[in-house]
Amino acid sequence: MRRKRLNKAACPIARALDVIGDWWSLLIVRDAMRGTTRFSDFHKSLGMSKNILTRRLRTLTGQKILELVPAADGTAYQEYRLTDKGRSLYPVLMSLALWGQDNAPTNGPKSHLVDREHGQPVRGVNVIASDGRILKAGETRMVRTG
Amino acid sequence: MRRKRLNKAACPIARALDVIGDWWSLLIVRDAMRGTTRFSDFHKSLGMSKNILTRRLRTLTGQKILELVPAADGTAYQEYRLTDKGRSLYPVLMSLALWGQDNAPTNGPKSHLVDREHGQPVRGVNVIASDGRILKAGETRMVRTG
Repeated sequence: MRRKRLNKAACPIARALDVIGDWWSLLIVRDAMRGTTRFSDFHKSLGMSKNILTRRLRTLTGQKILELVPAADGTAYQEYRLTDKGRSLYPVLMSLALWGQDNAPTNGPKSHLVDREHGQPVRGVNVIASDGRILKAGETRMVRTG
Repeated sequence: MRRKRLNKAACPIARALDVIGDWWSLLIVRDAMRGTTRFSDFHKSLGMSKNILTRRLRTLTGQKILELVPAADGTAYQEYRLTDKGRSLYPVLMSLALWGQDNAPTNGPKSHLVDREHGQPVRGVNVIASDGRILKAGETRMVRTG
């Protein structure tokens, strides 16, 4: 099924969804943030077919969320690395993680988000106004600019 | 195509994606945060087929992200309202909006996020440690808890 394109939407949420392209792609970005660089390691982690993984990686490099670079170990391999554009998806992933911890329970094994330095649970993800206030749902709106 | 279920994933990001179910569903949640409550208004805003919209709304109510309540105006209509679980997707939507503003350009009409009180652009979405520090990509990790 061909998805409706949202790349000309006025709303930046819709355009962001259009660029990322697929839920699964966020899990590729998640793995890249953890340091995964090789096709085979993405494949092992994500368990999707090689065809689909190839297509998703191609979309992500096409959107300059990932880039292909020569392997750091000097071999002939190429590695996938996050660009700055990709790395700036960090708050998106973290807000999903915290929401999932609170709202998507599982009886099975689970993990939660801590800060590396102290090992303490992450407190939250805050939306910050220009004057530093924390904004809540209903305290923001979209205005047309162009 | 049947999507692989992620509801038993250890990673809360994967479980969050599983619960939300589809990119499009986030646009329904966005509209609900703006005050949209009626099927016909979601339909007008989103431009997807009635069948698909019906299915997505059913998934969202099934996941208790939305709930169906009697219309506020006393008519026989029912309205879709965000639950607390749905409202707590706010940082997810805001981080997508800010990422889209910076990383998903358009030549067409566009809007951007401001705070209602001052009309100033939203500064950012911050990941906050338990001691109040702002955390950056690479400063968090997932630990297994169960």
